[in-house]
Amino acid sequence: MNCIIASTSTIHGSDYLAYLQPELHELFKDIHKILFIPFARPSGITHDEYTQKAREGLAFLNKKVVGIHESDNYREAVKNAEAIFTGGGNTFLLVKQLHDHHLMDTLRQKIESGSPYLGTSAGSNICGPTMQTTNDMPIVMPKSFQTTGVLPFNINAHYLDPDANSTHKGETRETRIKEFHKLNDTIVVGLREGSWVRVVGKKMNLGGKLAARIFKPNEAAFEVAPNYSFNELS
Amino acid sequence: MNCIIASTSTIHGSDYLAYLQPELHELFKDIHKILFIPFARPSGITHDEYTQKAREGLAFLNKKVVGIHESDNYREAVKNAEAIFTGGGNTFLLVKQLHDHHLMDTLRQKIESGSPYLGTSAGSNICGPTMQTTNDMPIVMPKSFQTTGVLPFNINAHYLDPDANSTHKGETRETRIKEFHKLNDTIVVGLREGSWVRVVGKKMNLGGKLAARIFKPNEAAFEVAPNYSFNELS
Repeated sequence: MNCIIASTSTIHGSDYLAYLQPELHELFKDIHKILFIPFARPSGITHDEYTQKAREGLAFLNKKVVGIHESDNYREAVKNAEAIFTGGGNTFLLVKQLHDHHLMDTLRQKIESGSPYLGTSAGSNICGPTMQTTNDMPIVMPKSFQTTGVLPFNINAHYLDPDANSTHKGETRETRIKEFHKLNDTIVVGLREGSWVRVVGKKMNLGGKLAARIFKPNEAAFEVAPNYSFNELS
Repeated sequence: MNCIIASTSTIHGSDYLAYLQPELHELFKDIHKILFIPFARPSGITHDEYTQKAREGLAFLNKKVVGIHESDNYREAVKNAEAIFTGGGNTFLLVKQLHDHHLMDTLRQKIESGSPYLGTSAGSNICGPTMQTTNDMPIVMPKSFQTTGVLPFNINAHYLDPDANSTHKGETRETRIKEFHKLNDTIVVGLREGSWVRVVGKKMNLGGKLAARIFKPNEAAFEVAPNYSFNELS
């Protein structure tokens, strides 16, 4: 495989995808055209608008960017893609669309075949076995919470540490993930904004300058440093 | 109807249910026994543990508190209850249990019959037509996102205003609710912690000292003051 699976598309004080530019030059160096999957529709923007945003964010690469919705046959579009970028937004909406169009398994095969894949936020949540550690609202009901499972662990994107000064009584992110582990065994990687999982062949490493937080069922959560090998997890 | 539908069980610096004590005296004044629904299991605590917590939180009332899980027949327990309290926790888990046990419609009928009902957090989310504006993680897949619909609008519990100083790029609560409205028409009431909806007969008013935030599709969100009548909404 050859993937960048990022917590976020954008970090504070920086333009869309800007912090990933050096990595994206490398990821997409041998390809000419990128298939963009706009199904997650952040803030409900249209597929066309979102594809235009992706096109502008990737303009520095001088590659062609086409939206999957422009194709007559979505499965063929995925099968024939040189490389794929799935953008962030609402994970329920993205997963519903992928299941409704019978794309989840096709996408898995495509990623596993080694075609370059970029995911941000919701587009990264679909790389684990399930979308069950998303932070998003259930604005639509997907047929299933299963996702591609190209990673052996779930992602929690935009991971946020508890705020010691907060007076808010809603559950912290860590509490939510612990609730997940009362009923599920999948390891969860909390990826802070600015972090990504870099997959090259079978190697999976933590990209970016920040630590990530690992949650296993029935164990205390722990931190791992940049460049950590997720292959050690089991 | 006769309900207190609260954003949260607990406010900062105060004990479980303490801020609601005067209201709960009034709500439960004519009843002897309260049926507690512990299905949402906050932090994954057991049904027994959660029922004990509710019992302690309601001890000031000197009423009997029994957990629904102690009953042989959950539907009969709801049908025969004098009053019901559904506690917070994970809304997906609560809604899955209510659907799996065919309790959603029974609960709706019970509440509509005028039996006193207290909901906090997840227990309030189930009072709208759907649970689709929950903040919780999809740790299990319920059969449906439909809920009791005893209120004509959805609740967003633990409503949080955007933090102007935040550097975090995850979606704000308002952005998430706007995404909901790109695909759904149900009005959403953002209830801040310390607020509740008081339902007496057909009258629905905002309880507590804080404003609430109302979201309608295709309109700017707006604030309403304490004691606001939700009957004005349409």
